[in-house]
Amino acid sequence: MIQRRTEVALTRCLPPDTTAPARLHGAMRYSVLGGGKRMRPLLCHAAGEALGADPQRVDVAACAVELIHAYSLVHDDLPCMDNDVLRRGRPTCHAEYDEATALLVGDALQTLAFQLLAEQPAAPAPERQLQMLTLLAQAAGSRGMAGGQAIDLAAIGMSLSIEELEFMHIHKTGALIRAAVLLGAHAGGADDTNLQSLGHFANRAGLLFQVVDDILDAEGSTVTLGKTAGKDAAQDKPTYVSMLGLTRAKELAARLRAEAHDALGLCPADTSRLHALADYIVERNF
Amino acid sequence: MIQRRTEVALTRCLPPDTTAPARLHGAMRYSVLGGGKRMRPLLCHAAGEALGADPQRVDVAACAVELIHAYSLVHDDLPCMDNDVLRRGRPTCHAEYDEATALLVGDALQTLAFQLLAEQPAAPAPERQLQMLTLLAQAAGSRGMAGGQAIDLAAIGMSLSIEELEFMHIHKTGALIRAAVLLGAHAGGADDTNLQSLGHFANRAGLLFQVVDDILDAEGSTVTLGKTAGKDAAQDKPTYVSMLGLTRAKELAARLRAEAHDALGLCPADTSRLHALADYIVERNF
Repeated sequence: MIQRRTEVALTRCLPPDTTAPARLHGAMRYSVLGGGKRMRPLLCHAAGEALGADPQRVDVAACAVELIHAYSLVHDDLPCMDNDVLRRGRPTCHAEYDEATALLVGDALQTLAFQLLAEQPAAPAPERQLQMLTLLAQAAGSRGMAGGQAIDLAAIGMSLSIEELEFMHIHKTGALIRAAVLLGAHAGGADDTNLQSLGHFANRAGLLFQVVDDILDAEGSTVTLGKTAGKDAAQDKPTYVSMLGLTRAKELAARLRAEAHDALGLCPADTSRLHALADYIVERNF
Repeated sequence: MIQRRTEVALTRCLPPDTTAPARLHGAMRYSVLGGGKRMRPLLCHAAGEALGADPQRVDVAACAVELIHAYSLVHDDLPCMDNDVLRRGRPTCHAEYDEATALLVGDALQTLAFQLLAEQPAAPAPERQLQMLTLLAQAAGSRGMAGGQAIDLAAIGMSLSIEELEFMHIHKTGALIRAAVLLGAHAGGADDTNLQSLGHFANRAGLLFQVVDDILDAEGSTVTLGKTAGKDAAQDKPTYVSMLGLTRAKELAARLRAEAHDALGLCPADTSRLHALADYIVERNF
């Protein structure tokens, strides 16, 4: 239901592919719509619901986070990065269009994320909305997601410690997952106590998501994943599975899942949807 | 003086190249600092001064605009775009570092622009600051600068009308120049009358800037430009010079300059610095 709601909201906030430049707008819609698990919008809405946020405000935050995520995938798939041609069961943006268009698609999707969160009512007060914009930018920038990508690039073929691997993932995927949860909470006017325990939950959930992703990448097939399976191993990238082995990676996932649930126990709000999502992150896979 | 002030402000807002990921932060600083005419910060401060804005607020807006400009140059120079190795008299980011780093540098500079404008006080009230963020995003996005790049790409080797060329430039460079002027004015709490006449000035100044750039590209040498001269012609891109010839392009520049001055005549604020900048755009060159 939230996925469907998010799809509608994303469809509305993306420029129509009939307005100039039509090819760019078409490529933006191609890259965002019709696929994806929408994990970040799910987390955003679950946190918003916990705080009793207006769902329309949460839509704004959820779409902004998802647009940042979508831009990062388009750029991550480019030849100078992961050079991948398959994503969500379809050709990647640069494979379907061309490299220059994919570059601009990513650029414009990032801009649209900030435009949306600045333009649409997303918080109980404008000061809070500025805080939300700051939070999203911190999560996406060089000390967040983009920084994680840079660390990931530097790590190819290197031998990392498990702490270094965790540091990379906290930035590369964890920061934006944390932002998704906190933005949903902010949309509901969350106080510091709620923000703190939800932030702790989000940190565990973000790592959990990555550990599970690594397990999936090692176990899954390209067909069920909708993206190229086994590519981390093929690119000689360190993963939780390559470093810990499959059994210990699964044990780590179980521990992170328990810690995520524990963190929610400290949150005064009704976090049943977030509990369910922590389970879903694991159970969608194994 | 404003250039120096901007250099200091940019130096402060960019992450130190000693914090992780150090290579990315070093490349971000390399791409932004130590070069550039800082035309957009000059316009931003001139408009701010006209409205009596606090110069520290204007610094925030000026840096945000300059970071967007810097990101666009880094991405524009990439092999899949203009494939240029020289910018501001130095190797471009991807030539000095590598393509993947340059991609992330552009991405992270864009994020930093929005982070800065959300995080630092830049307006008399938070509602106004949200308007400024919206304005910057509209100017940078698919219906502004990034859209202009897409139109530019599609125009290579094509025969454009002068109206189509103008449409491209209004997006590619005009939108951000307009944002620079209007953000400076917003920082000073400008009313609609001032915003309207300053917006009209900025539209003319933006086109003027591009016409002069085309003349420079045709007449200048690589050494004085600090970037590869004659590259538009070499890439078979339509320019004002290729379409109108040098004489008529210079006549157009003279007309746009006059129209820019006229637009300022309708602005109640003291616009002497903006008048001087309209002249400077032309006289820096010929």
